Amino acid sequence: MIRKLNFNAGPATLPLAALERAQAELTDFAGSGMSVMEHSHRGKEYEAVHAEATSLLRELLAVPADMDVLFLQGGASQQFATLPMNFLTPGASADYVLTGVWGEKALGEAKTVAAMYGAKVRLAATTGVGDGKEKSYARVPTQSEIAPDAAAAYVHFTSNETIHGVQYAVAPGAQFPDFGGAPLICDMSSDFMWRSTDLSRFDLVYAGAQKNIGPSGLVVVLAKKSMIERGRKDIPKIFQYRVHADNGSLYNTPPTFAIYLVRNVLAWVKGEGGLPAIEAANREKAGVIYAAIDQNAGFYRAPVETSSRSLMNVVFRLPTEALEERFVAEAKKHDMVGLKGHRSVGGVRVSLYNAVPVAWAKTLGDFMNDFAKHNG
Amino acid sequence: MIRKLNFNAGPATLPLAALERAQAELTDFAGSGMSVMEHSHRGKEYEAVHAEATSLLRELLAVPADMDVLFLQGGASQQFATLPMNFLTPGASADYVLTGVWGEKALGEAKTVAAMYGAKVRLAATTGVGDGKEKSYARVPTQSEIAPDAAAAYVHFTSNETIHGVQYAVAPGAQFPDFGGAPLICDMSSDFMWRSTDLSRFDLVYAGAQKNIGPSGLVVVLAKKSMIERGRKDIPKIFQYRVHADNGSLYNTPPTFAIYLVRNVLAWVKGEGGLPAIEAANREKAGVIYAAIDQNAGFYRAPVETSSRSLMNVVFRLPTEALEERFVAEAKKHDMVGLKGHRSVGGVRVSLYNAVPVAWAKTLGDFMNDFAKHNG
Repeated sequence: MIRKLNFNAGPATLPLAALERAQAELTDFAGSGMSVMEHSHRGKEYEAVHAEATSLLRELLAVPADMDVLFLQGGASQQFATLPMNFLTPGASADYVLTGVWGEKALGEAKTVAAMYGAKVRLAATTGVGDGKEKSYARVPTQSEIAPDAAAAYVHFTSNETIHGVQYAVAPGAQFPDFGGAPLICDMSSDFMWRSTDLSRFDLVYAGAQKNIGPSGLVVVLAKKSMIERGRKDIPKIFQYRVHADNGSLYNTPPTFAIYLVRNVLAWVKGEGGLPAIEAANREKAGVIYAAIDQNAGFYRAPVETSSRSLMNVVFRLPTEALEERFVAEAKKHDMVGLKGHRSVGGVRVSLYNAVPVAWAKTLGDFMNDFAKHNG
Repeated sequence: MIRKLNFNAGPATLPLAALERAQAELTDFAGSGMSVMEHSHRGKEYEAVHAEATSLLRELLAVPADMDVLFLQGGASQQFATLPMNFLTPGASADYVLTGVWGEKALGEAKTVAAMYGAKVRLAATTGVGDGKEKSYARVPTQSEIAPDAAAAYVHFTSNETIHGVQYAVAPGAQFPDFGGAPLICDMSSDFMWRSTDLSRFDLVYAGAQKNIGPSGLVVVLAKKSMIERGRKDIPKIFQYRVHADNGSLYNTPPTFAIYLVRNVLAWVKGEGGLPAIEAANREKAGVIYAAIDQNAGFYRAPVETSSRSLMNVVFRLPTEALEERFVAEAKKHDMVGLKGHRSVGGVRVSLYNAVPVAWAKTLGDFMNDFAKHNG
């Protein structure tokens, strides 16, 4: 078998070791005579998997004791709606900071909920440029551009934008800006666990699994107990964080196989040396690709400002769309796939999530240098 | 490997052929050099899987052309909330028919939504007995007991109740009762595709996958286009059936691996001879277990009236709880698992979903006869 060099933006490549572990026991989990996905979600075999996924996540990310770990369904897109459903109230206002399309989508759903509730949403900052429907984004806001409302029900931002390739706090040791005194909520879908993160500043963090930690169909929510308690009680139970926290994410049947795979991925992360080792590899991978861009600056063009360049999703343009197409097609001939930019922005996108090996980035970097030499 | 005789109520046993197919290609799907779960949900490899799952479902169940097939997340429990969110309006009323706990839960979420909207929900019929919080259910309602409101926004019922073992229309060729002229919605989670069903009477049908057609983390919705159009447009996009229908269930990232497994299960169903063959096997399996109960009527006691006895979940009691415990423990020694009744009702429960082979039911039937002889 030839394993493709998979630079998909999500669903994305997974550690081969995590997949092989799943394959080996797919029909007979831990000698139980059935697949893990055939076990009851309330049986001891699955409960051990669920507990291990939770404890690995807590350990690797140093999740504070006052935060609950929830495994939910519906992805980040559903969180865009359930967050305002839980935390907005009539007359209240929520702040949103936009650095790309996912933040726009979160804001859009919040506007709908606010209209239902008689509440408001407000832009605390945006780096979007353009008058049309499709704005471009090339950086995160500076501290002085963020105008937070201390009385807001919450402030929401997106730590990494996959389509525009804009990420916060990418320099080693860099901190997130100060978003003011309101409860802080972050969509970390596309850079969750890319490095150690001080979670004590956050009241709620969420992440679709299908980028850095597992397959699609699962979203992880880390929420302070005090935030969970703040949630409305007059909305359907299935949308109350409280209900899921009180039931250990077993209020309804969870996506057991997806959680099992997260367990496998996190066990691999631990075996690799935990998040410090993952961060070092991520910096090396992104370094290789950005170097190939900058060393061929007349040929490749990165639209994102250097200090906001995403280490997860490297986006760049070539001189013409025809060359971009040829780039993607020739890379494919060399077993490198998933490189086409999102249809809304075009260009090339290289997603370098945790499971992408350093060797793949080096192969792609060499290819980029060659391609520039022969086509520049 | 010893394959356990798995009578779990869901997540439940899956066809071994479907699992082995998944196992064989878990790290290399169709020669693509990656797992199906590593493919983009917008790439041609996954699109083919998604299309095949849809077309197999349409073909096997003869889904009418005016119904859309949606693959969503959140299980039936989330549908309990999103149905009233879509189809209730201020001043409107929805009818619910209760034959067990799942219907109660659906009604509970609808009450919450109705309170938010200034709408109402109404009991069109219930067979629940008892004043306390936990009612018992032993049958479906008679036609004369159903008092439908023709002006209702919709009428909702549950075709099979897993905890109480109560199912509608179990006799060969039996039809569902007449639920009146309002749009008809059915939770078919636990008996979806157990046989051919005339879907033309329904406006919307939904089913969690983890009983008859796949793993947990996926819910199938079949909805008439006219019903979808009736849905509210002022709720979050993620909860609008319209949005998912317009986007072919790709509005947000779907649970791709769960849909792939449904494809494998439905391909197995087709290979077995389709739903007529599945129905024949289901009738034989349930026949074996109910025969063992009735032939040892002084020892086993089925609480459900004969005409409402579920073919999916056979529930019965033994003379004492101590004997029930011994029954479950001894069955386990013979590799039969998942037989403990739901914690809220106790007793024994035998779930006989599509993937349970006839041979397993026969083995259990023999065991039941032996156990009665030695303990009666």
